[in-house]
Amino acid sequence: MTDSAKTPETSKSEPSEKRFLRALRREVVDRPPFWFMRQAGRYLPEYQAIRARSKNFLEFCYNPAMATEVTLQPVHRFGMDAAIIFSDILVIPDALGQKVAFEPGRGPVLEPIGEAKDLSPFDAEKQKAYLAPVYEALRLTKAALPPETALIGFAGAPWTIAAYMIEGGSSRDFEKLKAFAYGRPAAFAAIIDMLVEAVAAHLIAQVEAGAEALQLFDSWAGVLPEPQFQRWCVAPAAMIVRKVKAVHPDVPIIGFPNRAGALYGMYASESGIDAMSIDATVPLDWARDSLQPRVVLQGNLDPMMLVTGGEAMKADARRILAALAKGPFIFNLGHGVPQITPPSHVAELSALLQNWQPT
Amino acid sequence: MTDSAKTPETSKSEPSEKRFLRALRREVVDRPPFWFMRQAGRYLPEYQAIRARSKNFLEFCYNPAMATEVTLQPVHRFGMDAAIIFSDILVIPDALGQKVAFEPGRGPVLEPIGEAKDLSPFDAEKQKAYLAPVYEALRLTKAALPPETALIGFAGAPWTIAAYMIEGGSSRDFEKLKAFAYGRPAAFAAIIDMLVEAVAAHLIAQVEAGAEALQLFDSWAGVLPEPQFQRWCVAPAAMIVRKVKAVHPDVPIIGFPNRAGALYGMYASESGIDAMSIDATVPLDWARDSLQPRVVLQGNLDPMMLVTGGEAMKADARRILAALAKGPFIFNLGHGVPQITPPSHVAELSALLQNWQPT
Repeated sequence: MTDSAKTPETSKSEPSEKRFLRALRREVVDRPPFWFMRQAGRYLPEYQAIRARSKNFLEFCYNPAMATEVTLQPVHRFGMDAAIIFSDILVIPDALGQKVAFEPGRGPVLEPIGEAKDLSPFDAEKQKAYLAPVYEALRLTKAALPPETALIGFAGAPWTIAAYMIEGGSSRDFEKLKAFAYGRPAAFAAIIDMLVEAVAAHLIAQVEAGAEALQLFDSWAGVLPEPQFQRWCVAPAAMIVRKVKAVHPDVPIIGFPNRAGALYGMYASESGIDAMSIDATVPLDWARDSLQPRVVLQGNLDPMMLVTGGEAMKADARRILAALAKGPFIFNLGHGVPQITPPSHVAELSALLQNWQPT
Repeated sequence: MTDSAKTPETSKSEPSEKRFLRALRREVVDRPPFWFMRQAGRYLPEYQAIRARSKNFLEFCYNPAMATEVTLQPVHRFGMDAAIIFSDILVIPDALGQKVAFEPGRGPVLEPIGEAKDLSPFDAEKQKAYLAPVYEALRLTKAALPPETALIGFAGAPWTIAAYMIEGGSSRDFEKLKAFAYGRPAAFAAIIDMLVEAVAAHLIAQVEAGAEALQLFDSWAGVLPEPQFQRWCVAPAAMIVRKVKAVHPDVPIIGFPNRAGALYGMYASESGIDAMSIDATVPLDWARDSLQPRVVLQGNLDPMMLVTGGEAMKADARRILAALAKGPFIFNLGHGVPQITPPSHVAELSALLQNWQPT
């Protein structure tokens, strides 16, 4: 009888063999593990083929067989060390009852909310039932993944989800969102607090369905001054980490406060996350000296280098490895794989990473 | 006979009386000087009234009387310590012969170029003649400004101008721009080199027309990894600074590598600028300890705090003053005044700054 037998949903087959999980635990690995944000996506023809079978993007996310298939596609093609379940950060507002649609060429469109009371109150059981297809996709994926490949669950962070909920979609200046957060902080806090509950519950349910690590995407963290960043990004992340760790103390959590600039330092120190994804603009010497002593780092090739390919891409990947691979490190991009990426470039980069030898 | 009599175009009336110029020279001032990026603009009804008289935005910029009038408007209303000449960073591609239009609600639209040879070669005399209305506006403004108010000239930085020239407008991911810069760096360098010449010539001509300080706006500096930031933002800024200082060694130059995050440090050390504008996301302790010893700092209230107004705005302004006003510092926003700003909030903030006493 092993320890893992007590929690069969989270049992890991040969966990010590998974390079990705070993790196997250700061164990020595033969080479840095790698995966790419949005590695399952439109740049792959086999993704497009599956995607074409479903008109509606959220329906597609909620189809466990399809979500499983596209999650596995890049792993089969390129052999990443981790797969991230195919889903979307906007399943949370969708589960909360907000109207969410994805319009081709325009991205997500939501019916903007004005107050927390515009939504039904958070109901953990209801959310778990509503998002059951996501958990089913995790179970199917876990069973189908190669034994050396780790499975990542994820959620959007409260600030970023709130941005979509209040702006009604993407935004350049986040005028509605900031007017709300700066002008009526108590009402805004009610929304953030509800999202902390919803996100933590969603992450916990993903671990129970087989996720071995979690990533919290705060895509719009980089637009806030320090006190607001602390209040609306770092503090909610810390609360989510506490809630998840209270139930699953050993599951590693990766935070991604995208474009946080010099504020990555505060996030590394105060959020309680185990690892931090950094965008492509973070200077490597600073990351190595100021961030890596505190958290496992993940990043940070410019996705447009992947589009460029060739020697420029390889030289930039080697620059990153030379700076960060001595510490605990997971190679990734600074943001998602662009749709215009030639799959052959992803293959070239994957081969470089698989064959990389520290000098 | 004073020194300044040798270069009558740049002579300053009582320069030591101008708080803004004294702060830029690191002299002790009674309180930090202030001005606001885009302080002349659509949030002011008196601006809208003038703007309505001209259909075309570039025609408006090239009308010296109108440009002068809108430059003076915020100074008359709020008493900023500096006025920035009303113009646009896209006068450079316009002068180079690229088709530039401003479409209401959509921003600038350019006919994208593919190569440096798609443009007529840079001709200093031709540019100076083409942009004569800008210089005339500077002369008129200089003559009309209150004696205590400094006059700032400006230009876009090569990387940011190139972004508009190649993308054909604003962009979210700068795919065309980065594909060009990363994939064909020699051809891209030809465009940047031409822009270094054009921008330096435009800045020098502005000093000759009465500008007492200069600001170089690199609005899209914040999307590049370190080596690319060094090559396409820092190095061109350094070349421009050298060219301007070779002719006008005493004119202070403010650089604004917007959203550069931790890379603000490299810009402060290597660009040769005298002062650096920082966006609202830069943490103040880090700015004070890592940046202010190297450059005069300018910033960094979140423009959405100005829209919010009231105690939230005032508290945030005081937070910035408490952290940075001991060093050489100019109070500003982290970005331009938003169109939705109530002018009364600008008045409130201006009064706070005019009455601020260090504790």
